Amino acid sequence: MCGIFGISDNEESAKLSYVALFTLQHRGQESAGIASVKNGKLSYYNSMGLVNEIFNPSVLASLSGKSAIGHVRYSTAGSSSVNNSQPLYFNCKYGEIAVAHNGNIVNAAHIKENLAKNGAIFQSDTDSEAIIHLISRSGKKNFFEAALEQLPKLKGAYSFLFLNKDALMAARDPYGFRPLVLAKKDSSFIFTSETCAAEVIGAEIIREIEPGEAAIVKNGKISFFRFSPIKKYSRCIFEQVYFARPDSVVCGHTVQSARYLIGKYLFEEMKGVKADIVSGVPDSGSAYALGFSAASKIPYVPVFMRNHYAGRSFIQPDQKMREFTAHLKLAPIKDAIKGKEIVLIDDSLVRGTTSLKIIKSLKNAGAKKIIMAVASPPIISPCFYGIDTPTKEELIAVRLKEKDKIRKFIGADELHYLSLDNLIKACGLGDKNFCKACFDGKYPVK
Amino acid sequence: MCGIFGISDNEESAKLSYVALFTLQHRGQESAGIASVKNGKLSYYNSMGLVNEIFNPSVLASLSGKSAIGHVRYSTAGSSSVNNSQPLYFNCKYGEIAVAHNGNIVNAAHIKENLAKNGAIFQSDTDSEAIIHLISRSGKKNFFEAALEQLPKLKGAYSFLFLNKDALMAARDPYGFRPLVLAKKDSSFIFTSETCAAEVIGAEIIREIEPGEAAIVKNGKISFFRFSPIKKYSRCIFEQVYFARPDSVVCGHTVQSARYLIGKYLFEEMKGVKADIVSGVPDSGSAYALGFSAASKIPYVPVFMRNHYAGRSFIQPDQKMREFTAHLKLAPIKDAIKGKEIVLIDDSLVRGTTSLKIIKSLKNAGAKKIIMAVASPPIISPCFYGIDTPTKEELIAVRLKEKDKIRKFIGADELHYLSLDNLIKACGLGDKNFCKACFDGKYPVK
Amino acid sequence: MCGIFGISDNEESAKLSYVALFTLQHRGQESAGIASVKNGKLSYYNSMGLVNEIFNPSVLASLSGKSAIGHVRYSTAGSSSVNNSQPLYFNCKYGEIAVAHNGNIVNAAHIKENLAKNGAIFQSDTDSEAIIHLISRSGKKNFFEAALEQLPKLKGAYSFLFLNKDALMAARDPYGFRPLVLAKKDSSFIFTSETCAAEVIGAEIIREIEPGEAAIVKNGKISFFRFSPIKKYSRCIFEQVYFARPDSVVCGHTVQSARYLIGKYLFEEMKGVKADIVSGVPDSGSAYALGFSAASKIPYVPVFMRNHYAGRSFIQPDQKMREFTAHLKLAPIKDAIKGKEIVLIDDSLVRGTTSLKIIKSLKNAGAKKIIMAVASPPIISPCFYGIDTPTKEELIAVRLKEKDKIRKFIGADELHYLSLDNLIKACGLGDKNFCKACFDGKYPVK
Amino acid sequence: MCGIFGISDNEESAKLSYVALFTLQHRGQESAGIASVKNGKLSYYNSMGLVNEIFNPSVLASLSGKSAIGHVRYSTAGSSSVNNSQPLYFNCKYGEIAVAHNGNIVNAAHIKENLAKNGAIFQSDTDSEAIIHLISRSGKKNFFEAALEQLPKLKGAYSFLFLNKDALMAARDPYGFRPLVLAKKDSSFIFTSETCAAEVIGAEIIREIEPGEAAIVKNGKISFFRFSPIKKYSRCIFEQVYFARPDSVVCGHTVQSARYLIGKYLFEEMKGVKADIVSGVPDSGSAYALGFSAASKIPYVPVFMRNHYAGRSFIQPDQKMREFTAHLKLAPIKDAIKGKEIVLIDDSLVRGTTSLKIIKSLKNAGAKKIIMAVASPPIISPCFYGIDTPTKEELIAVRLKEKDKIRKFIGADELHYLSLDNLIKACGLGDKNFCKACFDGKYPVK
Repeated sequence: MCGIFGISDNEESAKLSYVALFTLQHRGQESAGIASVKNGKLSYYNSMGLVNEIFNPSVLASLSGKSAIGHVRYSTAGSSSVNNSQPLYFNCKYGEIAVAHNGNIVNAAHIKENLAKNGAIFQSDTDSEAIIHLISRSGKKNFFEAALEQLPKLKGAYSFLFLNKDALMAARDPYGFRPLVLAKKDSSFIFTSETCAAEVIGAEIIREIEPGEAAIVKNGKISFFRFSPIKKYSRCIFEQVYFARPDSVVCGHTVQSARYLIGKYLFEEMKGVKADIVSGVPDSGSAYALGFSAASKIPYVPVFMRNHYAGRSFIQPDQKMREFTAHLKLAPIKDAIKGKEIVLIDDSLVRGTTSLKIIKSLKNAGAKKIIMAVASPPIISPCFYGIDTPTKEELIAVRLKEKDKIRKFIGADELHYLSLDNLIKACGLGDKNFCKACFDGKYPVK
Repeated sequence: MCGIFGISDNEESAKLSYVALFTLQHRGQESAGIASVKNGKLSYYNSMGLVNEIFNPSVLASLSGKSAIGHVRYSTAGSSSVNNSQPLYFNCKYGEIAVAHNGNIVNAAHIKENLAKNGAIFQSDTDSEAIIHLISRSGKKNFFEAALEQLPKLKGAYSFLFLNKDALMAARDPYGFRPLVLAKKDSSFIFTSETCAAEVIGAEIIREIEPGEAAIVKNGKISFFRFSPIKKYSRCIFEQVYFARPDSVVCGHTVQSARYLIGKYLFEEMKGVKADIVSGVPDSGSAYALGFSAASKIPYVPVFMRNHYAGRSFIQPDQKMREFTAHLKLAPIKDAIKGKEIVLIDDSLVRGTTSLKIIKSLKNAGAKKIIMAVASPPIISPCFYGIDTPTKEELIAVRLKEKDKIRKFIGADELHYLSLDNLIKACGLGDKNFCKACFDGKYPVK
Repeated sequence: MCGIFGISDNEESAKLSYVALFTLQHRGQESAGIASVKNGKLSYYNSMGLVNEIFNPSVLASLSGKSAIGHVRYSTAGSSSVNNSQPLYFNCKYGEIAVAHNGNIVNAAHIKENLAKNGAIFQSDTDSEAIIHLISRSGKKNFFEAALEQLPKLKGAYSFLFLNKDALMAARDPYGFRPLVLAKKDSSFIFTSETCAAEVIGAEIIREIEPGEAAIVKNGKISFFRFSPIKKYSRCIFEQVYFARPDSVVCGHTVQSARYLIGKYLFEEMKGVKADIVSGVPDSGSAYALGFSAASKIPYVPVFMRNHYAGRSFIQPDQKMREFTAHLKLAPIKDAIKGKEIVLIDDSLVRGTTSLKIIKSLKNAGAKKIIMAVASPPIISPCFYGIDTPTKEELIAVRLKEKDKIRKFIGADELHYLSLDNLIKACGLGDKNFCKACFDGKYPVK
Repeated sequence: MCGIFGISDNEESAKLSYVALFTLQHRGQESAGIASVKNGKLSYYNSMGLVNEIFNPSVLASLSGKSAIGHVRYSTAGSSSVNNSQPLYFNCKYGEIAVAHNGNIVNAAHIKENLAKNGAIFQSDTDSEAIIHLISRSGKKNFFEAALEQLPKLKGAYSFLFLNKDALMAARDPYGFRPLVLAKKDSSFIFTSETCAAEVIGAEIIREIEPGEAAIVKNGKISFFRFSPIKKYSRCIFEQVYFARPDSVVCGHTVQSARYLIGKYLFEEMKGVKADIVSGVPDSGSAYALGFSAASKIPYVPVFMRNHYAGRSFIQPDQKMREFTAHLKLAPIKDAIKGKEIVLIDDSLVRGTTSLKIIKSLKNAGAKKIIMAVASPPIISPCFYGIDTPTKEELIAVRLKEKDKIRKFIGADELHYLSLDNLIKACGLGDKNFCKACFDGKYPVK
C-alpha cells in the first residue's frame, strides 16, 4: 500500500506536501519522497525511512517550486531499496516527469518485457515505470495527451500523480480500486489518497476523482478528462477494514463510523454472546469494539497499553533482548484482563500469527475466556491490486480451512468472522461497487 | 516530573535500563541518561532528547557493567540543559557516585547556599545535587552510611537511586510523595518509578519502598533501612490523575481502573446530564470517558484522531506552517462531532488554554453542545514536590475564581469538576494518605 | 573530473572499493557510490558527499558481493544532484547493469535526443546514460557483445566500468583521453583511474588499458577486446599538471617527478631570475617549487600553512564570518614572507582570481616582490573531455590576452608561463601523444 | 596537550572562538567545547570529536554572549570521556564559572585529596578542577580576587582562562611552561595558546602573558596582575619541536623558521654525510628537511604522499581491512625512493615504533639506505607538565640506552640525534629559559 499527495499553485507546496505525507504515514512507512517543479526544472528528494526522519528545513527549502507531488511507500518484502522509492524521476522527449503511484499494475511485467525487447531501460523494480515508457513512445505532441492515450493500456489498480514543468495531473484506474480525492485550498488544487491529509492543511474536500477519470491542473485551472469508461466500480473494501485512517471520509462517512457499525453488526451476528468486557486489538480494533459494546451493553475496556514512543526507530540492541521487548509496544493491562471473559475484536485474520501472540499474552495475564471476533470475513485470496497480502498458501483461512481449526491455532475459546453481507452494508456503497476479491476470490481484472 | 530505574546483578543492566526508560518515557521527554558500574569504575551517558534517539548499540555497549541506574527528565521551562540531565556524576571522598532523582527538594536552595558559603561547587542547577554535598561532608566511613545519616536533612519529595562501585541504593522520602517500586528478575533487584517498566522486562513486582525507607543491594543481597519514621503518608494523588501510565499498578489497582471509576463518579455527580456521546481528550481522557459511558449508557465515541507518528521530532519548517499543523497531532473526526451534544472529559484544568483550543476545534467541526467534565477538582495551588505546575497566578481556577467564568473562558456550554472526595475514593488509599495540596492548598511539608 | 575503480573476485570487494575511492577522492568530492553484485543481483549505494561521510560499516555490509565498481564525482556547477551520482543503475533486456564513467561524451546530447524521439527515458542529466541506451537497443545476444558493438558510436572521452551479474568490463575511448589502469591482487582483477588506488590495497600494477581497448573479467578470467583502432593517442596532459595524485604513476614516472622536472624547466626558461626564496601554492605548487629550487639554488621555503582539518565540512556560520575565515585554509607564514622577493609557482592560471587573492595575501604579509611562475602555458580553450574549465570568455588568457595585463590583474611583479614544449617534454610521452587542446585549441575530436 | 582561546566584547564571540579552535585543532583532537556568557548567564557546549564535527550554526547560535572561552583537548589514554572535556562548568558562592586549562598541575591529586576529605565533590578526573575548589573556599569577596589569592597554591604547568558573568580572566603559571598570548581585535581582547588562532580572525598580537601574571578583562578594559614572581622561566621547548603550528610565532620567530634552523644545525652536526636526497616524515619533518637541504645542498624530495581527506572519521570496516589501509594516510612515492640513499628527518623518537614502520615502508619501496636524523635529543624523562609522553620504561632511549641499539630497532642504517645545545640555540631563548626536562631530566617543579 502507498499514499500519494499533490498540490498546485502554492508557494509552500513542498512544506504542505510534507505535512500531508506525515498525515498519510499510516499508508506506508518504508520510504517517502517529494518532487517539486520550479522555474521549469524538477527537483526531488526520496529516502528510506519515515517522513519526519527524511525531511528537514534545508531539504524542504531545496524543493521550493509552486507545485509538488509526494509519496509514502509501504514496506514489502524483497524490493525494499531506495531506487524503488517514489516519486520516480524521468527525462524523456516530453521533458522531465515525476510520478507517484498507489496501486498495482497487473500487466506491468508483460509491458516491461515487451518494452525491454525494444531497448527500454528501467531504473527500478516497480510496476509504476511501465506507464512512463508507454507514454515516451507515444506519437502525441505533449506529455498529457500521451498519458491519456496510453493509460488505457494498463490493467490493474492505479491512482497516479504526474508532475512536469507545465502541469500536475491525476488519474484513477477505470475500476477505481484505490482512492483519489480532489480538494481545494485557496487557489491550489490538491489530490490525496485520503481526506485526512487535505483537512490537516485546511483544504476543502471537493469530490473523488472518478474511475477512468483524469484531472490536469495547468495555469491555475483544472480540466477533467475521461480516458476510459468506468468499468465495474471496484473500490477496495479492505481500505475501510484496515488501511484508512479513522478520521478519513470514505463513501460519505468516516472510517471510524463504518467500523463502529461493523461492531454493531458483529454483535447482531453473535447474539446471545456472554462476556464481561469487549476490547479491541490496537489500534484499528477499538472502533469495532466500541460499536459492539454500544449494541451489546457489554462494557468496553482497553486491555492493552500501546507505547506512543514506539516508532520504527527503537533499536533492539541484540537478539537476547527480544524477549524483554515483547511487551514494549503492547503491554497487557492486568486488572482489566484477570479472570475476565473477553470479546476481543481485530480487523482481520491474515496469517493468524499475530492473533496467536496476542491471545497468549491475554491468557498469561489471566483472561478466563477469549471470544475472538473478526471484523471481516475469512481472507481466502491474495490481493493483486496493491495490498501486501501473503501467498494463498500462507493465508490461515486457506491453510486450515475449518473455522474450528483456526480457532485452535490462535488459541481462542470462540471465533466469529463478520459476514460479507454485513461488511458491505457497513461500508456503504452496495454490493456492486466494491472489490472484495480477498474475501470471495472474484477478481475484477486479471 | 521524572522517571527513575535501577537494576543490580545483571549482565544486560544497561540494555534492560534502556528498555525500562523507554517504558517510562511518558514521565519525561527532555533528557535521559544511564550510568553503569564496571570493574569498580562508573560510566555514564546523558543527552537531551528521547530515549530511542539517545541510545544506540554502541552507546549501550560502552555501559557494560552489571549494575545500572537510569533517568528520564521532564521538560520544564528555564533549566533545560544537558548539565541538568541525570544521572548526575560525582567524585568525592567516598569515590564515584551516580544519582538519579525524582521529586523536588524544598530546602535545596537553602542547603546549597550554606554549602556554597563553605566552598561547595555545583555542576548543575538541580536541587538533586544538595544531598551529595551533604553526604560528602559526613564523617561516616562509607557512602551508604553517610547517605542514611544525611537524608533526613532534606525536606520535600524525593525518590533517589544511588550507584557506586559497591552497591545500588534506593531511598524514598518520609512522606512518600513520589512512587518507588521494588521488583525482582532472576537474581537482579530492580527499582522503578512505575510497575510498567518492571513488567516490560519480565520482572516480578515485590512491593513499594516505604516512605522513609532505604534499600541497599550489595553482593547480590538486599538490605532495608529506615532512615526516618514515616511522616504523614502523602502520596501524590495527581500521579493517578495525569502522570502514571494506565497499565501501571498504583495503590493496588491499575491506573486505568481508577480512571474508569472516576468516570463513573463523574456521572453520578452530574446525574441527569443529557448528551449524544461522551468522549475524552487523548490520551488520558479516554479512560475516564469509558467509565462515564458505562455508568450513563451514553455511547463513548472518539472525537479526535491522534497521529501516532507525531513524536517530538516533527520539525515545523517555519512559523507560517504552524497554522497548517494545528490538527496534525489531534485531528477532529467530523461525523462523530457534527450536530452532537458531547460530554468531553479531560484529566484536569490547569491554565485552561488547551481546553479552549480543543473546544474551539470541536465547535468548528459542528459540535452542538460541549459539556466539559474535569476528572479532578479545581487546581488552586502550585506543586512544590515535583509536578511542573505554573505559578498560582496562572492557574485558571485562581485567576477566574468562579466556575462560570472558567466555563466561558474555555468556551464550554457546561462545566463540571469532580469532587475531591470522589477523587480520593477512586484513588483508593483514603483521605489521610494522599498529598492533594494542588487541590486543597494543604502542603505536608514547607 | 571523476575517478573510477572496479574489482572482481574478492570477498571484500565493496570494502576495498571504499578504500580505493577514498584514495581517489582528489578526483571528485561531490558524490560517491559503489555498486556490487551478489547472487546475480545488483545493489548500489550513492550519495552526495565525501567517501568517508557516505559509507559506514552497515552500508558496506549491504554491498557484499564479490565484484564491485565505484565512482567519485567532481562538483561542477548546475548539475549537482544525487540522480547524477554514479554508479548509475539500469535494468534492460540484458538485465541489471551498473555503470561508472570518467570523461565526457561529446555527442551524448545528439544521441540522447535521437533516442528520446524513439521513446528512451533518462534518469539523469549525465552524458553517461547515452551508451546504455545504445546498448539496450542492440540486437546482440548479450550485454558485453552489445557494448563492444555500440561503444564506437560514442565520440569524446570515456573510461567506463560496467558491472552486471556475469562480469566486470572496462573500456577506454580510442583516443585515451582519460586514464584507466589494470592491476591484480591475488585472483582479483582491478581497474582504476590512478595507480595510487591500486597500490593502497596492495595490488600490483599490470598495465594501462589501451585506447580503443576493452577488458572483460568473467569467471575469474580476463579477456581483452579491441572495439576500435587507436585513433590519435590523446592522453590529457592536464592530469599531470593538476589532477593526478603526486604518487600516482603516469607515463612511466610518478606525477611528483614530472612536476619536479617542470620546476627545473621553469627555472631554465627564467634564467637569471633573482629571488630570496621560491615557494609553491599548496598543494600542487610545492613539487614544482622544489624542482625550481634544486635547479636555481634559490631556497625553497613554504609561505602558506594549510589547515589539515579543513575538509568540506567546515560550516561558515554566516556571511559575516567569511572575512574571518579567509586565512582558515591557507594561512601566510609571516617571517618567511616579510621583505622577501619570492618566486611563487602555481600549476595553472584559469580565471586568475585565486592567484589574485593569494598574491594579495602575500603582499599584505610583507612580500617585497612576487615573481609568479605558472607551471603550464596559458589556457586558451575550454576542455570538452571532462575537465571542468570555464567558458572561453572567462579564461584570463583569453579575456586579457596580453601577459602584462594578466600580470597586473593578479598583482604580480613578474609573470612567466611554462612553454608548451617543456611541458610536453616533462610529461614524457612526446608531442604526438597528448591532448593539449586547452593550451593550443587543437581538439582531437569534435 | 590542549589549546585554549578566549575573547571579550564581541557579538560574534562564539563564532570567532569556533574559527580559532579550528585553527588550534592540532593541539587536541579528542574533544572541544565553548562557553559563553550572555545576560549574566553561562552557556556551554562540549563534545567528543573534532571542532567541525561538534559545532553547527544552531549550537553556535545558542552560545550568543559577548564573551567566550574555548578549549580543544588531546586524546590521552584512559581518561577519554565527555565529563573531562572542557570548558568545565561550576556554580559556587561566586556564581557560575567556566574554566579552560592547558597544562598539568603536579600537586592536583594532593590538593583534591585534601579537599575531598573536607567534602569537596568533583565532576571530572581532571587536575583542572583543583583550582576552582580552592577558589570556592576563599574568603575573598569576589571570584577574581579569590583566584589571584589561590593560584599560587598550584604547582606545575597551567595556562588558565576563566569566564564568569562579569569578566574574562587569563593566568599563566610562574614558570611559564605553556604558552599564552594576548591579542586585540577592535575592542575585543583575545587570549590564545598560539598566535595562529588570533591571526586567522584578523587580530593583532600584543604580547605574551608573562609567567606568574594574570589579566582580567572587565567592562571593556584590561588590567594586569602579578600573582607570583616569575620563577625560573621554563617554557616548554618541545612545543617548537613538535606541537606548535609552523606559522605560529614563538619566542619571536615562526616555528617553521626554528625548524628550518634546526635542519641546518643537524647538517652541521652530521657534516660529511652523503645521500641522494633528504626528506621529512610528514608533516612536522618537512621543515627540518628543508633546512637540512639548504645547508647540505642535498636535494629535498618528498617521499610520502599524505591523504588530505584522512581525518579521524575514516572508518575501518573491520580488522581484516587494516592491512589494506596501512598506506592510506601515508603512501610512499616509489620513484622518489627506489635506489636512493635518504636522510630522513623526524621531530623526535619517543617509543620508536612509528619510525620502525616508516623506515620499513621506505625499504619496501626500494630505499637503498636510510640515514635517520632526529630533530631533537634522546627523550629520557617523561613530561609532568602537560605533554602526553609514555612512562620512562616505554621511552626507547631509556629502554635500549645505546644509540646503535636504537638504530637497529628502528631499522635505520645510520642514526643521529640533534644536540641539546643546538636545539636551544635554534629555539632562541637561551639555555636558562626553557624546560627541557624530557631531554635532561631536570624538572623545574616537582
